[in-house]
Amino acid sequence: MRGVKVSLFGFGNVGKAVARVLLEKERFFRERYGIALKVVSVADTSGVVWLPEGIDLQEALLVKETFGKLSAWTNDYEVYNFTPEEAVEEIDADIVIDVTNDGGAWEWHLAALKADKAVVTSNKPPLAFHYAELVGEAERRNVPYLFEATVMAGTPVIGILRENLLGDTVERIEAVLNATTTFILSRMEEGRTFDEVLREAQSLGIAERDPSGDILGVDAGYKATILHCVAFGPITFRESRVKGIGGISQEKVREARSRGRTIRLVATLERGKITIEPREIPVDSPLAVESHENAAVIWTDLLGELVVKGAGAGLKETASGVVSDVIKAALRIA
Amino acid sequence: MRGVKVSLFGFGNVGKAVARVLLEKERFFRERYGIALKVVSVADTSGVVWLPEGIDLQEALLVKETFGKLSAWTNDYEVYNFTPEEAVEEIDADIVIDVTNDGGAWEWHLAALKADKAVVTSNKPPLAFHYAELVGEAERRNVPYLFEATVMAGTPVIGILRENLLGDTVERIEAVLNATTTFILSRMEEGRTFDEVLREAQSLGIAERDPSGDILGVDAGYKATILHCVAFGPITFRESRVKGIGGISQEKVREARSRGRTIRLVATLERGKITIEPREIPVDSPLAVESHENAAVIWTDLLGELVVKGAGAGLKETASGVVSDVIKAALRIA
Repeated sequence: MRGVKVSLFGFGNVGKAVARVLLEKERFFRERYGIALKVVSVADTSGVVWLPEGIDLQEALLVKETFGKLSAWTNDYEVYNFTPEEAVEEIDADIVIDVTNDGGAWEWHLAALKADKAVVTSNKPPLAFHYAELVGEAERRNVPYLFEATVMAGTPVIGILRENLLGDTVERIEAVLNATTTFILSRMEEGRTFDEVLREAQSLGIAERDPSGDILGVDAGYKATILHCVAFGPITFRESRVKGIGGISQEKVREARSRGRTIRLVATLERGKITIEPREIPVDSPLAVESHENAAVIWTDLLGELVVKGAGAGLKETASGVVSDVIKAALRIA
Repeated sequence: MRGVKVSLFGFGNVGKAVARVLLEKERFFRERYGIALKVVSVADTSGVVWLPEGIDLQEALLVKETFGKLSAWTNDYEVYNFTPEEAVEEIDADIVIDVTNDGGAWEWHLAALKADKAVVTSNKPPLAFHYAELVGEAERRNVPYLFEATVMAGTPVIGILRENLLGDTVERIEAVLNATTTFILSRMEEGRTFDEVLREAQSLGIAERDPSGDILGVDAGYKATILHCVAFGPITFRESRVKGIGGISQEKVREARSRGRTIRLVATLERGKITIEPREIPVDSPLAVESHENAAVIWTDLLGELVVKGAGAGLKETASGVVSDVIKAALRIA
């Protein structure tokens, strides 16, 4: 049995979902992979709970759900006021998991890699702006830097492009990478206005209170940038052309539908070129996804057309990608 | 640059396609992966051409296409009358590629693994009957045993199930894994009889002269068995229930179509249970594939439903899977 020490950064909805999977499937991971994962620290914005002997995740989840913050948990555990950088430096861990929304996290990702710690992340900006630096450092040191959950939740499109199709040259990718815009566009087809549907999405928790990242196409743009880095080579989000769905009228959506077509926010990638824009597609296209589904169509020189379709959002679905990467990292470093 | 010595067994259509990709993309593989592949032997049923300094693949392809057999090539090269077992033993190679149809190849796969040589195969029976033994030996020795091209050509369904979704538990898989039966059923929808379409498929080279492996569902059964081994654990083809498309009448096919449905040869997998049978599916199902496309729908506990759709046959498409595995093996052993 290989013991692997894990440091978890971020204990919001995704962090809690990851903790739940690690807890519920602990025995499965031991039996199937011979890996015993030990979570030695959990951090939210209130503080860092750290116990080298391993944290009781069930209790951590209970504290978080009861009090809303880890810093309330003071009877058995020490709560530290570390910055992420300090926590990465102080805490002895084999794998650092980042499920935060910290836009500046690339700095502590880099610090972790330089300390030969594997990094698993669902946090997009570090990759969308600093891919070359981070992946370069990881490759030089032969330390895993894994980010399946940044694009299409746990649907393994990163794994397919990064670790498979190794003899193929990717020529083009088209993908629907944002579920909130799909929800809004689908509902508009039923005759509702953009504003009505946006309010509904917010009340259902599908859209953020500040929905601009989804609506403006920034979220899809980050994801497309990451796909480009993996399929074609490093690039940053700044080099992508992004047009959101804000200008789409209800008439336009319904008119497309009447012609057997549907509007989706589509990312189109070729070498050196990323475009995100609302596009009319036939309803029988693989890109005509519904609900929280995402889809990518990948064209290569040898295989031709490959379609990958699966969850693009959701808590368990995102945890799937994070936990798969944790196991992958554990198998490589142990 | 890491030099990697490759021994190629099988120089029919797939073997030649693999040789062409290795030849045409040699520079790409050097630049992208830092890997210099050197093919030290090529074998067909007429003999084994072996040159430790590396074989000129362009010339090998020319000889094969001109004379139909490698044994005709006697001016510059030695042609040996090795059995595959002898060739595996005698020839110094890092990776053994099997693109033959040798039903007994599992014995020399095992011999190669015991000699710490990586094995890459598109040949199904070794896996459909000896998975546990072969993969067990490879894992004990930490030697790559890779077989992406055995199922859905280069479409990376094996890579997805074997090296991704590591935190998920697969619950069920439904897949269309044989392109010949799809061709026949599609054409029958247009009003032609089974026998007419079969003759057409044979004259187009889509069906073998002896088409029983496809028609009876054996080919799909081998592939489903391999998927089961990867997703649920070892099993053999003998434990699967297979019903082919021989009994399907033209009326049944057209009648299904008139109800917006289509008949395909569908493999259904759950833990310990494999069924191959013609099934009626809605035309908008991901399994309603056309032409040489295959599709797999994978259900897991965390991710939910995942659809993978891509080429299931074709020479370049199969070479894609073989060559990806060769690079994967080369990266691991070098």
